[in-house]
Amino acid sequence: MPVFHAHIPKGQYSREQKIAIGNALNRSLVVALNIPAGDRFVMISEHGDDELFIDPTFMDMKRSSKAMIVTVLVGAHRPASDKSALMAEICRQLEAAADVSSDDIFIALVPVPNESFSFGRGIAQLADKSPQW
Amino acid sequence: MPVFHAHIPKGQYSREQKIAIGNALNRSLVVALNIPAGDRFVMISEHGDDELFIDPTFMDMKRSSKAMIVTVLVGAHRPASDKSALMAEICRQLEAAADVSSDDIFIALVPVPNESFSFGRGIAQLADKSPQW
Amino acid sequence: MPVFHAHIPKGQYSREQKIAIGNALNRSLVVALNIPAGDRFVMISEHGDDELFIDPTFMDMKRSSKAMIVTVLVGAHRPASDKSALMAEICRQLEAAADVSSDDIFIALVPVPNESFSFGRGIAQLADKSPQW
Repeated sequence: MPVFHAHIPKGQYSREQKIAIGNALNRSLVVALNIPAGDRFVMISEHGDDELFIDPTFMDMKRSSKAMIVTVLVGAHRPASDKSALMAEICRQLEAAADVSSDDIFIALVPVPNESFSFGRGIAQLADKSPQW
Repeated sequence: MPVFHAHIPKGQYSREQKIAIGNALNRSLVVALNIPAGDRFVMISEHGDDELFIDPTFMDMKRSSKAMIVTVLVGAHRPASDKSALMAEICRQLEAAADVSSDDIFIALVPVPNESFSFGRGIAQLADKSPQW
Repeated sequence: MPVFHAHIPKGQYSREQKIAIGNALNRSLVVALNIPAGDRFVMISEHGDDELFIDPTFMDMKRSSKAMIVTVLVGAHRPASDKSALMAEICRQLEAAADVSSDDIFIALVPVPNESFSFGRGIAQLADKSPQW
């Protein structure tokens, strides 16, 4: 149920690498949070160089022209420890799958309560369950 | 004031259908939450098949190549019952307007407090009012 | 750390204006919230006229074909006064930089706790500090 949206620079990643990024983001959920592999909802958007502005060094990073911003709609019940685990795993998976430097990965996890998700049919499937995913 | 963003697969919806999707999302607010029809703020983004990854069956859905992810910035004051009503109505309206199967509609409602919205002129028009929209 | 995403109508802003919009949004943080200028994370997306639906008059605005929706992931610790200051400054900066009418700027500030941001290397750099940025 965490939903990913990777904002990447146009022309820096091939079709194969974009598919690998999609797989890697999904895998980070499985490894870091023990979420079912079928829970796969990932978007990628490309931005031209007049549409994506990422500081090259802020917070002592060495960012390249391949730097990206990844937003994740994540269960609001997740404690800080789960968030840290997910962030670290996103970087490990993206490096392994598409050779993305961890300095190039800005992440924002947006908390969303479980009752706010529908997997289909207009139903909030998780509304009356104990928090998961 | 709920703000919609529909992420749809490229090439699966015509220009006319995209306009119908915009209208349908707006109409879901009017019907489900009694919000004025003029409160119309909708974005659509297309994603190539290397940019949108939606599991075909997770949570027992039968999703097609037309599956989409709809995010909504919704008033943080809304109870779960309003959220459920909106989710159901989004599906009804999208099916009627653009023949979208309700299995193909993943929804995430992101809670945003009313004081965080500006309709223009850099003013938070709803900040000092009782919660609405 | 506030992360901007401006959704603009396709063909209404030149390359130079889009770069100016990126700069203006970053500058609004510096002026309104005293955030370091290096904290620069901005995305722009263009939407065709079948992909962006903004009511021309709702809430007594006079919106043009250049109207845009700006979302901002902002620290959840920010009080309403900071939010109002940021909204007003976004409009001032966008008008100065790219001649955008303040009636044409819809803003939604999405609250995100500091522990949910990573500036790189998979680390939540602000998690154990007192709220800032």
